[in-house]
Amino acid sequence: MITLTLTHKSLVKTPQKEEERLEEVIFERPYRIYLNEEPIGTSMVLPTGLEEFGVGYLFAQGYFEEPEVFKEVRLCHEKGSIFVYADVDRVEGKDLIVTSGCGGTGKISRDFLEKAFRPLADYQISLAEIREFILAVLKASDLGLRTHCVHACGFWEGGRLRLFYEDVGRHNAVDKVVGAILMGKASPRGAIYTTGRLTSDMVLKCARVGIPIVMSRTATSSLGLEIAQKAGLTLICYARPERINIFTAPERVLIP
Amino acid sequence: MITLTLTHKSLVKTPQKEEERLEEVIFERPYRIYLNEEPIGTSMVLPTGLEEFGVGYLFAQGYFEEPEVFKEVRLCHEKGSIFVYADVDRVEGKDLIVTSGCGGTGKISRDFLEKAFRPLADYQISLAEIREFILAVLKASDLGLRTHCVHACGFWEGGRLRLFYEDVGRHNAVDKVVGAILMGKASPRGAIYTTGRLTSDMVLKCARVGIPIVMSRTATSSLGLEIAQKAGLTLICYARPERINIFTAPERVLIP
Repeated sequence: MITLTLTHKSLVKTPQKEEERLEEVIFERPYRIYLNEEPIGTSMVLPTGLEEFGVGYLFAQGYFEEPEVFKEVRLCHEKGSIFVYADVDRVEGKDLIVTSGCGGTGKISRDFLEKAFRPLADYQISLAEIREFILAVLKASDLGLRTHCVHACGFWEGGRLRLFYEDVGRHNAVDKVVGAILMGKASPRGAIYTTGRLTSDMVLKCARVGIPIVMSRTATSSLGLEIAQKAGLTLICYARPERINIFTAPERVLIP
Repeated sequence: MITLTLTHKSLVKTPQKEEERLEEVIFERPYRIYLNEEPIGTSMVLPTGLEEFGVGYLFAQGYFEEPEVFKEVRLCHEKGSIFVYADVDRVEGKDLIVTSGCGGTGKISRDFLEKAFRPLADYQISLAEIREFILAVLKASDLGLRTHCVHACGFWEGGRLRLFYEDVGRHNAVDKVVGAILMGKASPRGAIYTTGRLTSDMVLKCARVGIPIVMSRTATSSLGLEIAQKAGLTLICYARPERINIFTAPERVLIP
């Protein structure tokens, strides 16, 4: 069993009083990701869904593009290593852009901003389903409630919450969902919901893996919006169980 | 004048109705950072405080350590370039850890996690000052209110809000404050307040630049806490005008 939180005694101060309090603090640990035995990078991560994370991380950073090339993933918890095997040559010297967001695996290859996207699968979702989806993610996000230090990411497919991950980083949580799709745990024909902001790289990896509906509890940025428009995906911000704000391609959302 | 937001027509849907709405979307743009004419990396950034950002970014990633080595910074908006000049040899092949957080400039050199920290300056703050500090930052964070897509970071020194920056990334906003300190715009003898979470790399750069009090509106992680303890700094989470939660070194906070 891997530790996900620790308890810390803190001191709460107000102008009137001072009292001790036990706080639950989320655990972050560095893991090194390897592609075909070659070290690619080390990322701080919440140690859950690590196989999915390794695969999604490499995909997001452009080390492989087609889901078919993925072969296997193995973990070594003791050494903090994630070994991904795929049928690719390692791409050297990519022109990576470290993305805004807020510290994490947000790196995108510059050429992805230029490229055309593959067509998205036919998919629509109703407002009633969106409501159920968001409530299911928020209910599942136990660590979020306890530590206030994780982002949650869920994937809705075939009328139910199919994937759910949390991480200290919003990027990492989305990488886990994307990795799970690449590993065949779900088809991309569905909707993704993240509690994090949809900056450029967040939208880009969803578009590249072929998810037609991308939703966030919060906002998007100019470049996130631009990528959504280019890819033709439905971008939904400020998503609440009873109210959504559709930025692009509203035809995929049915009423009720 | 640089554009910081754009307006986008979105569609708000609820089970009862549907209406168009104009949303303000934050602008993110890639900037390439050079050290002594050598390209180091490209980061998505909100184009404000770019000189400070370039300097803070290089410091945070370990390209230079001592404030004294910083010489000059120049911008080229057309090409999206930030040129930093410092009296250092370029450090090649550093073992960088991409940090959790949420996508951005969160990279730290592995050896900083092991190293001892320099002693911090003598500094104390009162609850009344903390209240004034937080209110000043929240009041200044105009873009945050308008776009819900930026993090704010302020620095309190000599009894007033001395520095204030916003960015799409919480890392970037802190990098701007750290860069400003390295450029001599403020002394590190003060308190920093960020609206973002205090993961490892966030606390680390504050500790390295010598800030004795590090505050966040939200949480810290296990490794953020560990670095605060090692550096001996005062870590404050869930900071509100009327209530703070002190995780380490509470003796720096005076009542009232």
